[in-house]
Amino acid sequence: MRKYRLMSPGPTPVPEKVLLKMADTIIHHRTPQFQAVLKSVNEKLKKVFLTKNPVVMFASSGTGAMEASVINILSKGDKVLVIRGGKFGERFGDIAKAYGVEFVPYDVVNGEEAEAAKVASLLAANPGIKAVYATLCETSTGVVNDIAKIGAVVAKTNAVLVVDAISGLTADEFKPDDWGVDMVISGSQKGLMLPPGLAFLSVSPKAEKMVSESTLPKYYFSLKAALKAIQKDDTPWTPAVSLIQGLNVVLDMILEEGLDKILVRHGKLAHATREAVKALGLEIFPKKPSNALTAVKVPEGIDGKAIVKKLRDEQNLTIAGGQSELEGKIFRIAHLGYMDEYDTIMSIAALEIVLKQLGYKFPQGKGVSKAVELLG
Amino acid sequence: MRKYRLMSPGPTPVPEKVLLKMADTIIHHRTPQFQAVLKSVNEKLKKVFLTKNPVVMFASSGTGAMEASVINILSKGDKVLVIRGGKFGERFGDIAKAYGVEFVPYDVVNGEEAEAAKVASLLAANPGIKAVYATLCETSTGVVNDIAKIGAVVAKTNAVLVVDAISGLTADEFKPDDWGVDMVISGSQKGLMLPPGLAFLSVSPKAEKMVSESTLPKYYFSLKAALKAIQKDDTPWTPAVSLIQGLNVVLDMILEEGLDKILVRHGKLAHATREAVKALGLEIFPKKPSNALTAVKVPEGIDGKAIVKKLRDEQNLTIAGGQSELEGKIFRIAHLGYMDEYDTIMSIAALEIVLKQLGYKFPQGKGVSKAVELLG
Repeated sequence: MRKYRLMSPGPTPVPEKVLLKMADTIIHHRTPQFQAVLKSVNEKLKKVFLTKNPVVMFASSGTGAMEASVINILSKGDKVLVIRGGKFGERFGDIAKAYGVEFVPYDVVNGEEAEAAKVASLLAANPGIKAVYATLCETSTGVVNDIAKIGAVVAKTNAVLVVDAISGLTADEFKPDDWGVDMVISGSQKGLMLPPGLAFLSVSPKAEKMVSESTLPKYYFSLKAALKAIQKDDTPWTPAVSLIQGLNVVLDMILEEGLDKILVRHGKLAHATREAVKALGLEIFPKKPSNALTAVKVPEGIDGKAIVKKLRDEQNLTIAGGQSELEGKIFRIAHLGYMDEYDTIMSIAALEIVLKQLGYKFPQGKGVSKAVELLG
Repeated sequence: MRKYRLMSPGPTPVPEKVLLKMADTIIHHRTPQFQAVLKSVNEKLKKVFLTKNPVVMFASSGTGAMEASVINILSKGDKVLVIRGGKFGERFGDIAKAYGVEFVPYDVVNGEEAEAAKVASLLAANPGIKAVYATLCETSTGVVNDIAKIGAVVAKTNAVLVVDAISGLTADEFKPDDWGVDMVISGSQKGLMLPPGLAFLSVSPKAEKMVSESTLPKYYFSLKAALKAIQKDDTPWTPAVSLIQGLNVVLDMILEEGLDKILVRHGKLAHATREAVKALGLEIFPKKPSNALTAVKVPEGIDGKAIVKKLRDEQNLTIAGGQSELEGKIFRIAHLGYMDEYDTIMSIAALEIVLKQLGYKFPQGKGVSKAVELLG
């Protein structure tokens, strides 16, 4: 018997009471009962997203909301700036390309953060940029970007700022209204502690004005339809009823624990993980690490893919490996969502066990003892 | 205490064991365990859709798969034929319009079925039509269309046939491969007995060839990406893990009961409902009714919206009213998915109770006794 443990940066573990709520009787979505759920969820989402703007939901993965943030505010030939510091930043560029939107790429070296000054110079060099696409936590590298600084730069232009906070939300400090973020994207299977299948997108008045002018084609992901429906606590299409029932419960859990305390918890787990892996002689990959996950460099001479595979196949524990050009070079342990001190201690223990089996030489026990010391 | 009863044509009731399966531990989607689930689901979907073609899944409502069936096979300026016999047929036209696809509408009077001969004459009068969009069961009117006949007509042209089987699948006879259907669309919250949040789209080799030629923009709903991923039992984006775990269970339930028996069950419940409401002096709205639901004309002098509202607020039972121009003129009782004889008898009993309260004069008890007679 070995329990399954999910330590990946999405999907993340779902609290039992949320799983059970989603197993409750399915009710029809066009009823006063479900409308009350939507009303409650719509209000609480604003509190968790720290925004006054409406937060619309889509039955889709986070990628759907990323696409919505492009196709609803732009027209063919429009120019945008895309900050690409990994797989998820790149996706914005791929979406823009698919729709004939011209984009200026700002390619950040994997593991480094985007520089606000560079954003400023690119905006100055490319007049007429309509939107800047940034990532709060780039899940593929474990970097957290300084959205406050980037927001201050973008605020001096006419462009809107769109931020992928899919994995960063609730883990890294993020104040979209204070920082000038016009659209916040997130997904259910990260800090929101739900299964995958719901995506979120907040829309500022400035972005909403662009929605009315955008001519790119859209239907299912139409923000015009979603923003009209949300005013009556409704949805344009059949919503993912069970996931939204679960969402109603997790939002209560989040607001009860308090966003500040949740940030502190993520920070503590991330700090302990970083110190623990350093005590094992390992290096942290990102220069400025997110608190959603810790990306660790695979040490010289060790098979990085084997670390992930052995944890999965022998320890029944899922972490994430590196993606694309980082495959085999890093591994990523999450602290995201429904995770506490003992999850972190356990993940370090499992890592030590597997590293030893793979022949990595390190001071055994130093990782777990460091984690216990910092989390006790 | 009054139990909640869901007698609407979507969402439909979800079996308890499926609800509990979806409440199981969330596993990561890029693991051998989940890949095995996808492999199993992909094979069983073909058996339930009665097709040799791959059936791809999207985390979305059924509308997402409808959009995918347009944007993946067409290019701007292409011409299609859209059979519009109600709200859902109309949606294909709306999607085509949103993407600059020219469409020839075949407007069928609400409650009537589409005539294959008319489809033939429209195809002859409009050469170069690339695709015909039809609806198996038009949920808004309760009509089932003769897809076999329409398929035979379309097969004589170069066009592909796309069928919205969202509410018809498992309820009405449907043999896509035998009938020349190239793309079948469905959704999770109907005959598949799941919560909303998953959509399905099968793709014939002929349609797949058009996918490679299509230039309409797409990203999340890209069939090219989905068809590539499905070959490795994978998905391009994070899939709706919990819903797919549930799907794996319902597909077993469906194959165990047997599609033939499920069709017979739906037919029996639909027949009993039709005879029972006729025994109450009511008229069936569609000329050729689907077995997924029964749409009933609201009798003269009775407030149709009050029937639905009283059932909902006083009997805790959800049926569907009429939509758009049929609002207040019909009501719709489903027989779709996880429903048996007693659900049907109960729905007729509730209908009698409410009709009496609304002052409708009818031979009391004749509806339920007819239902019991036919279903006992």
